[in-house]
Amino acid sequence: MKTLIVHAHPEPKSLNSSLKDLAVSTLTEAGHEVQVSDLYAMNWKTIVDATDFGPHASNPLQVARDSGRAFDSGALAADIRAEQQKLLWADTVIFQFPLWWYTMPAILKGWVDRVFTYNFAYGVGEHSDTSYGERFGEGTLAGRRALLSVTVGGPESHYAPRGINGPIDDLLFPIHHGILYYPGLEVLPPFVVYAADRTTPDDYPDIAKSWRERLLTLDSTDPIAFRRQNLGDYEIPSLHLKEGLEPVGRTGFGLHRHD
Amino acid sequence: MKTLIVHAHPEPKSLNSSLKDLAVSTLTEAGHEVQVSDLYAMNWKTIVDATDFGPHASNPLQVARDSGRAFDSGALAADIRAEQQKLLWADTVIFQFPLWWYTMPAILKGWVDRVFTYNFAYGVGEHSDTSYGERFGEGTLAGRRALLSVTVGGPESHYAPRGINGPIDDLLFPIHHGILYYPGLEVLPPFVVYAADRTTPDDYPDIAKSWRERLLTLDSTDPIAFRRQNLGDYEIPSLHLKEGLEPVGRTGFGLHRHD
Repeated sequence: MKTLIVHAHPEPKSLNSSLKDLAVSTLTEAGHEVQVSDLYAMNWKTIVDATDFGPHASNPLQVARDSGRAFDSGALAADIRAEQQKLLWADTVIFQFPLWWYTMPAILKGWVDRVFTYNFAYGVGEHSDTSYGERFGEGTLAGRRALLSVTVGGPESHYAPRGINGPIDDLLFPIHHGILYYPGLEVLPPFVVYAADRTTPDDYPDIAKSWRERLLTLDSTDPIAFRRQNLGDYEIPSLHLKEGLEPVGRTGFGLHRHD
Repeated sequence: MKTLIVHAHPEPKSLNSSLKDLAVSTLTEAGHEVQVSDLYAMNWKTIVDATDFGPHASNPLQVARDSGRAFDSGALAADIRAEQQKLLWADTVIFQFPLWWYTMPAILKGWVDRVFTYNFAYGVGEHSDTSYGERFGEGTLAGRRALLSVTVGGPESHYAPRGINGPIDDLLFPIHHGILYYPGLEVLPPFVVYAADRTTPDDYPDIAKSWRERLLTLDSTDPIAFRRQNLGDYEIPSLHLKEGLEPVGRTGFGLHRHD
């Protein structure tokens, strides 16, 4: 396995950083290759702007078009190209971060915004009567797998199907489906540590044991069963799920799973 | 009305910036006071780190605790304090941004991550048998209203109840409910421009007309009917929605609306 770990926490002694370190040691000891993008340690540039696109930055700036032209000609900023190369090298991508305000920290969102350029992560493939571009199951990163390892502040009950925050699977859907599955990554069920702010050193061995078990079984873990866009489940070009494909009563994000 | 507009787009000639400018002129001409936080123009610092907390940055860094102590003592970084003051000044907050990868751009997430500190936006209020802190309808920003004005790349059908991206209301729920309603803001239905990358100058008058109409009717627009946490709809402390409160068949994020 070749694993890229993208890590987003400012404190090297935090629970998140410990879980990142444990992933590195566990996978390395198991004989796998690992690269780490430690975004805070790298002083990762977080915002999209004209400097990302070199000579292809137009005036006025057009983010999608300019990023695609810069990608095509190899003129993207060097830090973006390096991350794209790591993604192409990897067969597995792990994201380690705390859920801040129900989604990823800004520095990680800035990694997505800058690295997932046009013609790399979107704008890929042709449109026809049977295909609406290569995305949601196809695309540049097809054949690879992704996994979120997240810490959250509240207890598990708050993220349950009737919990006030909304179900964790729904909170993560825009990342799982909209960011990762979109350019072709298969998405494994997340590893979630609840009530992370209340954990003590006494809790760590159990958390670490669970995380190691997940890491050592990545190969045999089934991905979330998202529906592929171009295999007949959706009308094209409306991309409405065809009637009757879902279990009775299922609505919302859950429509887009076929299990 | 006192309106704060938080704007997140790198290009002053973009559709987003035009909508921001139109909001300023429309509200000003109608006699309202307006402040703008143009995050790119301000060179907004996007990432949370120890420099945000002045002398309260601990080693190792503890983001929640340290931010709360810095807030309490007035020692937060000056740019954070300025934004908190604008929020307290405003009765209405408008967020103008493009939906990038199904959520806000990194620079705006970094505004949330840094400005919404402990003891300001969370960690407010006591816990008891009938209250789980002041949040989800109560809190520091109670009595104020918020509105998202967003542009999205795909056509409306892709964001419909059966659309492949998921329903727009569900995609925005983590922002509406998790970020805005959490510290007490009432949330108005969003203003969404679909297929924004395909709009031409010919489309702008109709978009502008719709946006002006929304801006001039903010006062009479009903907020989204999210359930208040501490008014009896939820079990405490599990924060599960009590059984039988929702319309038959409603699941997921929709449980947390009482309409």
